[in-house]
Amino acid sequence: MLNYQRYKRVPVVTYPERQWPCNEIKKAPIWCSVDLRDGNQALTEPMVVEEKIEMFELLIRLGFKEIEVGFPAASQIEYDFLRQLVERKLIPDDVVIQVLVQCREHLIKRTFEALQGVKKAIVHIYNSTSTLQRDVVFGKGREEIREIAVKGTEWVKQYMQGFDGEVVLEYSPESFTGTELDFALDICTAVQETWGASPDKKIIFNLPSTVEMNTPNVYADQIEWMNTHFKDRDSIILSVHPHNDRGTGIAATELALLAGADRVEGTLLGNGERTGNVDILTVAYNMFSHGINPELHIENIREIVDIYERCTKMEVEPRHPYAGKLVFTAFSGSHQDAINKGMQAMRDRKNTYWEVPYLPIDPSDIGRQYEPIVRINSQSGKGGVAFVMDTFYGFKLPKGMHKEFADVIQAISEKQGEVAPEQILDEFKSNYTEKKEPIHFRKAQITEAEDDTPFSTAARVRYTDHGVEKIFEGVGNGPIDAVQKGLEKELGIEIRVLDYYEHALASGSGAQAASYIHLLDVKTGKATYGVGISSNITRASIRGIFSAVNRLFYS
Amino acid sequence: MLNYQRYKRVPVVTYPERQWPCNEIKKAPIWCSVDLRDGNQALTEPMVVEEKIEMFELLIRLGFKEIEVGFPAASQIEYDFLRQLVERKLIPDDVVIQVLVQCREHLIKRTFEALQGVKKAIVHIYNSTSTLQRDVVFGKGREEIREIAVKGTEWVKQYMQGFDGEVVLEYSPESFTGTELDFALDICTAVQETWGASPDKKIIFNLPSTVEMNTPNVYADQIEWMNTHFKDRDSIILSVHPHNDRGTGIAATELALLAGADRVEGTLLGNGERTGNVDILTVAYNMFSHGINPELHIENIREIVDIYERCTKMEVEPRHPYAGKLVFTAFSGSHQDAINKGMQAMRDRKNTYWEVPYLPIDPSDIGRQYEPIVRINSQSGKGGVAFVMDTFYGFKLPKGMHKEFADVIQAISEKQGEVAPEQILDEFKSNYTEKKEPIHFRKAQITEAEDDTPFSTAARVRYTDHGVEKIFEGVGNGPIDAVQKGLEKELGIEIRVLDYYEHALASGSGAQAASYIHLLDVKTGKATYGVGISSNITRASIRGIFSAVNRLFYS
Repeated sequence: MLNYQRYKRVPVVTYPERQWPCNEIKKAPIWCSVDLRDGNQALTEPMVVEEKIEMFELLIRLGFKEIEVGFPAASQIEYDFLRQLVERKLIPDDVVIQVLVQCREHLIKRTFEALQGVKKAIVHIYNSTSTLQRDVVFGKGREEIREIAVKGTEWVKQYMQGFDGEVVLEYSPESFTGTELDFALDICTAVQETWGASPDKKIIFNLPSTVEMNTPNVYADQIEWMNTHFKDRDSIILSVHPHNDRGTGIAATELALLAGADRVEGTLLGNGERTGNVDILTVAYNMFSHGINPELHIENIREIVDIYERCTKMEVEPRHPYAGKLVFTAFSGSHQDAINKGMQAMRDRKNTYWEVPYLPIDPSDIGRQYEPIVRINSQSGKGGVAFVMDTFYGFKLPKGMHKEFADVIQAISEKQGEVAPEQILDEFKSNYTEKKEPIHFRKAQITEAEDDTPFSTAARVRYTDHGVEKIFEGVGNGPIDAVQKGLEKELGIEIRVLDYYEHALASGSGAQAASYIHLLDVKTGKATYGVGISSNITRASIRGIFSAVNRLFYS
Repeated sequence: MLNYQRYKRVPVVTYPERQWPCNEIKKAPIWCSVDLRDGNQALTEPMVVEEKIEMFELLIRLGFKEIEVGFPAASQIEYDFLRQLVERKLIPDDVVIQVLVQCREHLIKRTFEALQGVKKAIVHIYNSTSTLQRDVVFGKGREEIREIAVKGTEWVKQYMQGFDGEVVLEYSPESFTGTELDFALDICTAVQETWGASPDKKIIFNLPSTVEMNTPNVYADQIEWMNTHFKDRDSIILSVHPHNDRGTGIAATELALLAGADRVEGTLLGNGERTGNVDILTVAYNMFSHGINPELHIENIREIVDIYERCTKMEVEPRHPYAGKLVFTAFSGSHQDAINKGMQAMRDRKNTYWEVPYLPIDPSDIGRQYEPIVRINSQSGKGGVAFVMDTFYGFKLPKGMHKEFADVIQAISEKQGEVAPEQILDEFKSNYTEKKEPIHFRKAQITEAEDDTPFSTAARVRYTDHGVEKIFEGVGNGPIDAVQKGLEKELGIEIRVLDYYEHALASGSGAQAASYIHLLDVKTGKATYGVGISSNITRASIRGIFSAVNRLFYS
């Protein structure tokens, strides 16, 4: 039995004045990466210094201007890492280093020792403010908890005196989502007044969902309530730091942006305690997919994933938005068919906007490839097979041929499961272009009469029948017709060309052409396609006829 | 350069009348598993029949009453699987089988052949209705697209005549999130009128976010708009089928429930095309964590994960809510400390509700263990080490001792990374309880005077000093005092017991006790803890003193 009675719903905010559901995200927030602190902390194997530096340099390349590099007063490793960044001059002038520290004097003192030589730093102090933590962890009332934050602020003011660089204060009422809003406002205001924030010297208030406790609309209500109740709002940068315990960290972030947040703390691909921090990349790509500049250089997701996996020893799961191996695949036949048609329509109409069903973005815009988009399994329909033949190999199968060839692949996939593109091509060859026995075309001599009259084309065809060399001749309205007529007489069959379609396989004069002949056996009513390839369009067509004849009469 | 200018924001709904942000989720929806269809379709290795049956039986045990088993008219494998379910009588009477089929006559006819022998079936027809698909895939107007759905409905009515079981119709305007709301309503109404739904014979309208296109509040607006505009709403079951392209599938589902959805289609742990379908388990556990009965038997997540991973060959990622390996760990020292205190408060207060910081639910309620909660790394503080010693091994280290021992572990973790609980115990032994040289306690004879006066206890202690057997005697106010006095004289030292704390390691008369002695070297001002263990509380204390003396004077 599931013990659901042991749990209580956390009360929601009663805030009918909310405006955020009417808003839209219009621009990127200030991004702050906490990969090297919150993200690193929760790794089974934390990064070593060289990995941290590789990650730091990636974050710089991606365009992060605020990077939390650690909790230097709590860990010698993080202290040493910060010193390395300073001494090796790895911090660009336009990047602000952020350090976390509790509201305790000796830790704040030590933090400023670690920061010596940094040009501009965000000193991020926090204490836990939730009802539950005040009660069971600290055994303290609101006054005493507020005093911790105020004292912390005072110590930062005191110890920054001996520091050469610029200091921005960030304060987090940790476990904000479990804190009464009036108390969260009260403690922030006390910090604000102690610090002396102004529009020129803004303070960062970071309102974390340290543990995600509610549906994301409740977080948005909380953020909007704070946003509209802050004193001197123009002296404040409103920051959020969402976690993902309920699997809604991305949504909480987006709704918080609707509710007025200016800044987002998170990690690449969502590392962090438990279910992780919000994945900044997904939030940024979501903006990108709506035509909003995410203000991050994230055009190569594969490079990001490579470095991320190497440094963190975590693997990006196959269904992770934008980054996962499977997210640009389409297994469904109808999806594949629609993608195919959508891409065709974009080409035909020269559409400048990306509009393709089932593919919210063009994978190539973020360094992914088209190749893995389509895999064929027993659930794939005819469109998928045609799409693979086109996208991978350049064969534009005529529409009437889709089902015929898809049935071949479907039968295979029902036996073996998924069919790879190479196997699809192999089957295409053995069923069509290499279907050369027993009637094997060898050579043809085509003579066109000078005037364009009926039956002006004569074909003299050399072929082998079960290995025996033979020759036939035929005349007709063109080479296909002439060869057809000759074959009918030679083999004693009656056939009709239902459809004919030919295209170049690549551009240029040396390019090969593929010719598709839809051929009917008049006596039985059966029809099939044949396919021929050659750099000579006539020869390609003749091969297509032979391919069809072999399929129709000798299979 | 990131090509963000290639993308347009999908227009949002202008719907200021929305009520959903004021609502709360109060009860579980009707759950429909699509693991065997949508989930299976997108696997690199689709399930074989025996795996499908294992998955089906799991779904039944979990309490799903509606299960989509496939698209039998499109795939021989899915046809055969449905026949197996029928012929092997694997469908319980209270479970409704759902089958997907396009609005095409021969497919609907074949679907009913596949269903022969099923008592009650949901026949799920769909066609794509979005602006984009109407344009680039079908090249059809609204009228023609509506006609497809109406014809499909008519064919279901026609072919169900030859079917013995009960039929419920489900209709999906596929790609609903890209469909104009008035057209989605129009096409649903046409289907509703053709079918003849009533409160006794409800029709299911399933409104998929086939591709997630917007922030989840927009989906909620769309659902609430439909919910309030449907004709004869009491004849309708409003179903949602969210995908996760923007990483907000869980949120979209929850907000859709606020907006009036009655039913959710999804998969266990989120399989499905691309980024997958909504993960029903996370939505259900989210309800559970708020004291709402999710109406699913999900009290053993480990069994679910085991079967899921075996059947799908997918791995559950370590940060997946509720199911991932790391989600009940706490790497942060302050988190560990708060968890420790929260659990203690629950025990002390005999709290019936679960209220522990950083752990939204009690892992043991869903078949997870406490053991992996805490791992110690260089970022862990003193609370984490104390927590491991308590939870894993029953040693309740006095608060003053936390930092002393945590420093030992911190130094190790900064060298080697994470420290496992067993190694923490080993270090505890070698630093404390086995710190027996050079002054090694052997035996003691304690004589208590009959009257309770000062200096009424005499101790005669046999010990070895660098291996040489020696004896000393002392008198004091109790055994600790007597041994201390004797040791001071014997070794020529001056010590003071700053604190003493002792507890049983387990209950019962044979249980051992652990004794913690905080000892000061008066001359240098240095202090340290010593720890002794014995089934005799006096002997445990004397061992504690010797441990402290060895640490203070001989380290």
